[in-house]
Amino acid sequence: MRNLCPPDKGGVTNSARGANGGVMIKHALPVTREADFAAWYQSVITEADLAEESGVRGCMVIRPWGYGIWERIQRLLDDRIKATGHENCYFPLFIPLSYFEKEAEHVDGFAKEMAVVTHHRLVSDGKGGLIPDPTAKLEEPLVVRPTSETVIGTAFARWVQSWRDLPVLINQWANVVRWEMRTRMFLRTTEFLWQEGHTAHATEAEAREETLKMLEVYRSFAEDCVALPVVAGEKPENERFPGAVATYSIEAMMQDGKALQAGTSHFLGTNFASAQNIRYQNAAGELELAQTTSWGMSTRMIGGLIMVHGDDDGLRVPPRIAPWQIIIVPMLRDVPEDAAIIDYCKRLQVELAALSAFGEPVRALLDLKPAKAATKRWGWVKKGAPIIVEVGGRDVSGENVSVVRRDRLYRADGKLDSAILPLGEFVAGAAALLAEVQASLYTEARARLEANIARDVTDFAGLERAFADTVKNPGWVEVQWSKPTGDALEKIVERLKALKLTLRNVPMDAVAAEGLCVFTGDAALDHVLVGRSY
Amino acid sequence: MRNLCPPDKGGVTNSARGANGGVMIKHALPVTREADFAAWYQSVITEADLAEESGVRGCMVIRPWGYGIWERIQRLLDDRIKATGHENCYFPLFIPLSYFEKEAEHVDGFAKEMAVVTHHRLVSDGKGGLIPDPTAKLEEPLVVRPTSETVIGTAFARWVQSWRDLPVLINQWANVVRWEMRTRMFLRTTEFLWQEGHTAHATEAEAREETLKMLEVYRSFAEDCVALPVVAGEKPENERFPGAVATYSIEAMMQDGKALQAGTSHFLGTNFASAQNIRYQNAAGELELAQTTSWGMSTRMIGGLIMVHGDDDGLRVPPRIAPWQIIIVPMLRDVPEDAAIIDYCKRLQVELAALSAFGEPVRALLDLKPAKAATKRWGWVKKGAPIIVEVGGRDVSGENVSVVRRDRLYRADGKLDSAILPLGEFVAGAAALLAEVQASLYTEARARLEANIARDVTDFAGLERAFADTVKNPGWVEVQWSKPTGDALEKIVERLKALKLTLRNVPMDAVAAEGLCVFTGDAALDHVLVGRSY
Repeated sequence: MRNLCPPDKGGVTNSARGANGGVMIKHALPVTREADFAAWYQSVITEADLAEESGVRGCMVIRPWGYGIWERIQRLLDDRIKATGHENCYFPLFIPLSYFEKEAEHVDGFAKEMAVVTHHRLVSDGKGGLIPDPTAKLEEPLVVRPTSETVIGTAFARWVQSWRDLPVLINQWANVVRWEMRTRMFLRTTEFLWQEGHTAHATEAEAREETLKMLEVYRSFAEDCVALPVVAGEKPENERFPGAVATYSIEAMMQDGKALQAGTSHFLGTNFASAQNIRYQNAAGELELAQTTSWGMSTRMIGGLIMVHGDDDGLRVPPRIAPWQIIIVPMLRDVPEDAAIIDYCKRLQVELAALSAFGEPVRALLDLKPAKAATKRWGWVKKGAPIIVEVGGRDVSGENVSVVRRDRLYRADGKLDSAILPLGEFVAGAAALLAEVQASLYTEARARLEANIARDVTDFAGLERAFADTVKNPGWVEVQWSKPTGDALEKIVERLKALKLTLRNVPMDAVAAEGLCVFTGDAALDHVLVGRSY
Repeated sequence: MRNLCPPDKGGVTNSARGANGGVMIKHALPVTREADFAAWYQSVITEADLAEESGVRGCMVIRPWGYGIWERIQRLLDDRIKATGHENCYFPLFIPLSYFEKEAEHVDGFAKEMAVVTHHRLVSDGKGGLIPDPTAKLEEPLVVRPTSETVIGTAFARWVQSWRDLPVLINQWANVVRWEMRTRMFLRTTEFLWQEGHTAHATEAEAREETLKMLEVYRSFAEDCVALPVVAGEKPENERFPGAVATYSIEAMMQDGKALQAGTSHFLGTNFASAQNIRYQNAAGELELAQTTSWGMSTRMIGGLIMVHGDDDGLRVPPRIAPWQIIIVPMLRDVPEDAAIIDYCKRLQVELAALSAFGEPVRALLDLKPAKAATKRWGWVKKGAPIIVEVGGRDVSGENVSVVRRDRLYRADGKLDSAILPLGEFVAGAAALLAEVQASLYTEARARLEANIARDVTDFAGLERAFADTVKNPGWVEVQWSKPTGDALEKIVERLKALKLTLRNVPMDAVAAEGLCVFTGDAALDHVLVGRSY
């Protein structure tokens, strides 16, 4: 084990982390989760080179490491979307204003704060500046898409004539814009990236099946690829997407106990089909409205990744979605012997790249940037590369490598846990090691989720008590309820709002209800999760 | 060979195609290239399900087959962009108006017709409609990016401090908007998809090397993957990107003899670095301006693909960029024997998917849509799937398949060239057959390009004559010139414009000049291509 090199590490000294007892560890980030979770979140984004302010209001620049994670998410989720029979398309960025007028329910919903294009030309203002040309005003303003139900539904109406044209199963990867007053990188930005699936079916049963199938794609993708344990369930009526008959979500628990909605799937019934005139002739020759669905997952997932897997040394990226899984850092000293170290590292890189992990070639990077080895090591620790391998002159002569696992960075004595292994042994076990890191991140997060859902609250006072403590992580409470709707539900939502709480979802896999509703006192029909949220 | 089934084919009867002599062939498209090239182009887009009007001015819907081709282009080009050391990022869709004011040269260029966002909210107009909220006017209008030099340059200024931070090598895949008055699908649309690379370097030599390296990436990508022969060269001064010191392009020849600029690479010198303040401290501690480049390729490439490889039966997609390379069409008759045909087809699909072509698994689709086999066959012919395999009851009992190559659709007698092969033989040769189709499309296009560049024109009158004939394909003329600049060049451009001609580029691989300039009569310095263009 090599000594740490504190000046290259930056960060803070912190003795309060449980696993290490009273051992003092100088962590790599300038702020710990415990000291200030919001500041810690922002520091991970900065220190791991994930994103930065762009200078454009509410829009971020996604930097290579952050975008690389998004590309991995895209690739793996896209494979699953295609494997379930969907095809990718691309629809316009701009939606004519009149499309929103057609969809009254849509307009009542989120579709108010939107970026509106009103002019198509800039001209000189005569004072060295530019202004929108008053003579180039659009007859009909264009809205930058906040979501594409209206424009895609219009295309569906053209595509669907007969039952033979159904189902239509499409998806698009796109940028969307929602004018947010308060923005937070990855969680709520004016522009964000996502995929939006849109489907049309002949029957309600088939459309409902599709809605749940994609919810399950999201659940398994989040758990298997992002190592993010989630609760899949139906949103209560008040949290439905405007125009949806049913909205489902996957909810992940952040390390501060708040919930993050990490993907949604909507059964839209015939609401959108009716507004957009998506009709088909059934086998009997009668005209029927199609049943539609939509579902989306976005760059918000990266915010979830940070808050679930990050620690006081930065991000920890699960190997399946890490742009680079194994980083090789040569310890160079600007001497002739460096050449042998670099050769050795290149050989290692080639051997690793020939391996397969999770059904894909292993992604191994040799970091030859002009910087000190210790600076590079801590840079990759902060970025959260799953495995970091250091190679010095002694490693070359001994045919060894020094290996650090990002998921288990420190030994019990608080020192960096760097294992010296024979090169051959490391290579032979590298794919298994990646699988182990993937599994350990999931297991840790799953245990935290399970430990922080209280299921013993039986009345509203108990609910208040559960969230009254000034604990750092109040977690969630799963209560029984009678599934009230309309005004009765609205009253509950208001009561919860006063406690800064929201109804998250009705878990699909909850045990049968048997008792009284925590809110109404009526016989319970189901369980619902209550918590703070992003 | 099976008989054609004209009612399922649609299209026109045409006897004029050379290779078939006087044989009458009923082609699948409603219009031939010879009859009306522009109408033919549009009919390929429609009949091959590539794209359609969206209802939003100047914006198209890219349908699954068209988008699938774009995804293949993205995947293969992205691999090459990464292999040359670039990383992907994402920058904002919106660019504050003031960024354009900073860049005077930029403003003089294309940056006039642009979509301008002026409001961030829609409200009811009190009459059941919606209007941009007058109280939600943006203090500074936002421009929807026409290209990202300004916003990316601003980021570079933050990222680059020292020579150690250079080079910065990044790329983004994005949508951009240019307000075009006359639009044409894939060739000129208000919104289009592209990649834009942006790099910053310490020295001019390195930046110039990068510019040419990416030009070569485009050339080899176009030729090796899209089977599109191109001429790589430098654009004359008047065709430079505004603010560039040098602009290079690859130019492809369409079947009507017009040129299509299919990719550009710009050496920007210190022009953008100076406007955006991208400075670095060199090894001697002095502050210097960085040297930058940018380069892009877009969905326009699909327009080129259509006009180079399309024929009177639709599109022909080179196997490397075909979303599906081999289509299996079962000939079903709604009888119990269908099950055996489907089983046989599934076995074939599995065997094909286990093969590798061009270093990737073969993409084989079993088309089980509810339609007649002949309709499906002609649908795939129009889409241009490289190989179409039909399987009927007799094929199953004989362990055969009927194979159609899209690049050689007809026999000399004008009948569909469908070869019956033993299943095992077809599978064993499938990867090689795909390589053969890829090569034959390239060879055919290369021969046409070579045959249609005239190199014997020595004076302007000769140039006028070359383009004066009312031939369908006037091709290009490569002439010697003295590389005039400024006003002298402007005069030449005007003279050519009167003939509807443009200077395309100065080919990199032209032989040395030795003679007089066709335009000025001065000693020639170089060769330049002249032609009509899209």
